[in-house]
Amino acid sequence: MSNITALRKEVEDFLKAIDFDSKSPKNLYAPMGYLLSLPAKRIRPLLCLMAYEAASGKDPQPALPVAAAVELFHNFTLMHDDIMDRAPVRRGQPTVHIKWNVNTAILSGDALFAMTMGMVAGAFPEKAQALIAEYTDVAMGVCEGQMEDMDLAEETAVTIPQYIEMIRKKTAVLLGGCLTLGAIAGGASGSVIGQLREFGEKMGVAFQLQDDLMDAFPPDGFGKQVGGDIQENKKTFLLLRCYELADEAQKARLDQLLYGGTTDAEKVDGVLDLYRTLGIEAETRQLIDRYFGEALEVAGKFSGHSRFESIVQFLQDIARRSV
Amino acid sequence: MSNITALRKEVEDFLKAIDFDSKSPKNLYAPMGYLLSLPAKRIRPLLCLMAYEAASGKDPQPALPVAAAVELFHNFTLMHDDIMDRAPVRRGQPTVHIKWNVNTAILSGDALFAMTMGMVAGAFPEKAQALIAEYTDVAMGVCEGQMEDMDLAEETAVTIPQYIEMIRKKTAVLLGGCLTLGAIAGGASGSVIGQLREFGEKMGVAFQLQDDLMDAFPPDGFGKQVGGDIQENKKTFLLLRCYELADEAQKARLDQLLYGGTTDAEKVDGVLDLYRTLGIEAETRQLIDRYFGEALEVAGKFSGHSRFESIVQFLQDIARRSV
Repeated sequence: MSNITALRKEVEDFLKAIDFDSKSPKNLYAPMGYLLSLPAKRIRPLLCLMAYEAASGKDPQPALPVAAAVELFHNFTLMHDDIMDRAPVRRGQPTVHIKWNVNTAILSGDALFAMTMGMVAGAFPEKAQALIAEYTDVAMGVCEGQMEDMDLAEETAVTIPQYIEMIRKKTAVLLGGCLTLGAIAGGASGSVIGQLREFGEKMGVAFQLQDDLMDAFPPDGFGKQVGGDIQENKKTFLLLRCYELADEAQKARLDQLLYGGTTDAEKVDGVLDLYRTLGIEAETRQLIDRYFGEALEVAGKFSGHSRFESIVQFLQDIARRSV
Repeated sequence: MSNITALRKEVEDFLKAIDFDSKSPKNLYAPMGYLLSLPAKRIRPLLCLMAYEAASGKDPQPALPVAAAVELFHNFTLMHDDIMDRAPVRRGQPTVHIKWNVNTAILSGDALFAMTMGMVAGAFPEKAQALIAEYTDVAMGVCEGQMEDMDLAEETAVTIPQYIEMIRKKTAVLLGGCLTLGAIAGGASGSVIGQLREFGEKMGVAFQLQDDLMDAFPPDGFGKQVGGDIQENKKTFLLLRCYELADEAQKARLDQLLYGGTTDAEKVDGVLDLYRTLGIEAETRQLIDRYFGEALEVAGKFSGHSRFESIVQFLQDIARRSV
C-alpha cells in the first residue's frame, strides 16, 4: 500500500497539472484554479486512490483522474454552497463570489462540475457506465443534502433523525462515493462496493458529529473560534439534543438565548452552560462512538482483505485528527 | 424516418414519466418539474433522436434517455442563466429564482445537471465513455459561451468575430452536440460525427442571428415586442455592424441613444432608423445566408445518406419558423 504522503503528492501534482491559468475565458477558469490552489487535505481523492489500490491490487496511478474529479466536485460544491450560505471566507481566503461575483461563482462552479464528468468516465472505458451511474447517485445525494440543510434552517421542529439524514447526504455520501468510485474502477465485487459505501457514510456521519462537537467543546490547542454554530443558531445534534433533554424552564432559557437578542458572547456562554448541565458532550460522544463502531463493524466484512486495512487505518487516523 | 409529431410525443411522454413530483426534498425536484412542464418545442431532443435514427438505421426509442438528457441540460442552463440575467419570466411564466428563490434555483439546477450524466451514460454501455466525453465538451462550451456573453456585456470594444464566437458556444454548440450525441449512440463514423457537429453549429449561429434580426425587424404577425435587444443595449450583430458602418455623426447619435437616457420608445425608433439608413437588415440577412449556406455545404457531405436528409429538412423548416 502506498505511503499517504507520497500519494498526497501525486494528487497535488495531478491537480497542479490541470491547466486553469491559460484557458479562456479567464473569468470561467481562474476561479477554479484559485479555489483548487488553496491548501487542503485532499482526503477525498486519497480515499478514492486507496480504494482503487485495495480493489485492484495495482498501483493507484490509473485512478488519478477519478480521484482528481472527486476533489474538483467537492470544490464545485464549496463554490456554490458558499454563495448559498453567504460565506465570505473559505480556507482563510475570500470565497469566489466575494473575490469575483455571484454570477461568476455560479457559472465557474457549473463548468467545474462539467469537467469532472469526462474525468470520471475517461480513465476506465469499460467501466465508464458504472462509474458515471455511481457518480450521478453521489452527486444527487449531495445536492439533496444541501437542500435539506437549507430546508431545516427554515424549520422550527427539526428531529434528530432528520438532522442525521441531512448530514449523511450532505457530507457522508461523498466520502462513501470516493471509496466506491475507486473500488468500481479497481474491479471490486458488488458486495465489497456496498460495504465500502456503508463504511464511508458511517465514518462521514461520525466526522460531521465530531465537527459539531468540537465547535462547542474544542480539544486543547484547537485553533478555531468556539461556538460559531451556536452564534448562528445552527441546528446541530448538540442543540437538538439539548432541546430534547431540557425541562420547560431550560427550554425557555434556550429560546431566550437563541432568539432574545443577547450578545454573541452571552449567547455562547449561556448555551454552553446548558450543554454542560444536560451532559450534551457525553451524549454526542456516545453517538459518535456508535457511528464509528458501526463503521468498523461493516469494515470487518471487507478488511479481512489486508489491502483494505489501510483505508480503515487512514480514516481512524483522521478521526483522531492526526493526519 | 419517424414522423416529427410522433417523435415529439415520444419525447414529451418520456419527459413526463420522469418523476419530479413525488421525490424529496420537494424544493429540489419541484423546480425541475415546473420548468420542464412549460411548453417548449423540444428541438434539441428531436435532433438527438433523428441523428441516432439516421446513424443506426434503427428505431430511435433506445436513444430517448440521451435525448431527454439534452433537454434537461438545456433547462438547467436556462435555470442558471435566468439567475445571472435577472430574468423574471421564462416561457411566459415566473422563472425559478423568482417563483422560489436564488439558492433554490442554483441547487435545483445543479441537481438537474447531475441527473443528466447518468441518462447520457446509461443507455449505451459500450459507448458510455465516448458519449460522456462528447457531453463534457458540449457542456464546457456552453459554460464558456455564457461567460463570454457576460464578459462582452461589460466590454466597450466588442468585435463581430468575438460576438459570433460567443453565440457559437452559447447556443450553437448544444445544437451540434444534440446531433453528435445521437450519432455517437447510433454508431456513426468519426467523420460523419465531425460533419454533424459542424453542420449543427453553423445552423445554430444562423438561428441566433435570425433571432437577433427578428428582434429589430420582425416578420408580419410576429407576436413579440420589437426592440427588446435595443432597449437593453445588447451587443448583437446588428448593433456591432451598425457601429462599424456609422460615420462620426451617426456614432455620436448611436451613443446618445444608447447611453443618453432617452425613453425606450425613442431609443428603439432612433436605433431602428440608423439600422435602416445603414442597411443593417440586409447585412444581417447576408450573414445568416452565409451560415445557412456553409451549413448546407457541410450537410452535402453526409446527407448523401438519405437518412440524414430529414435532419437537414427539419432544421431548414425551423429556419423558416414553420415548425
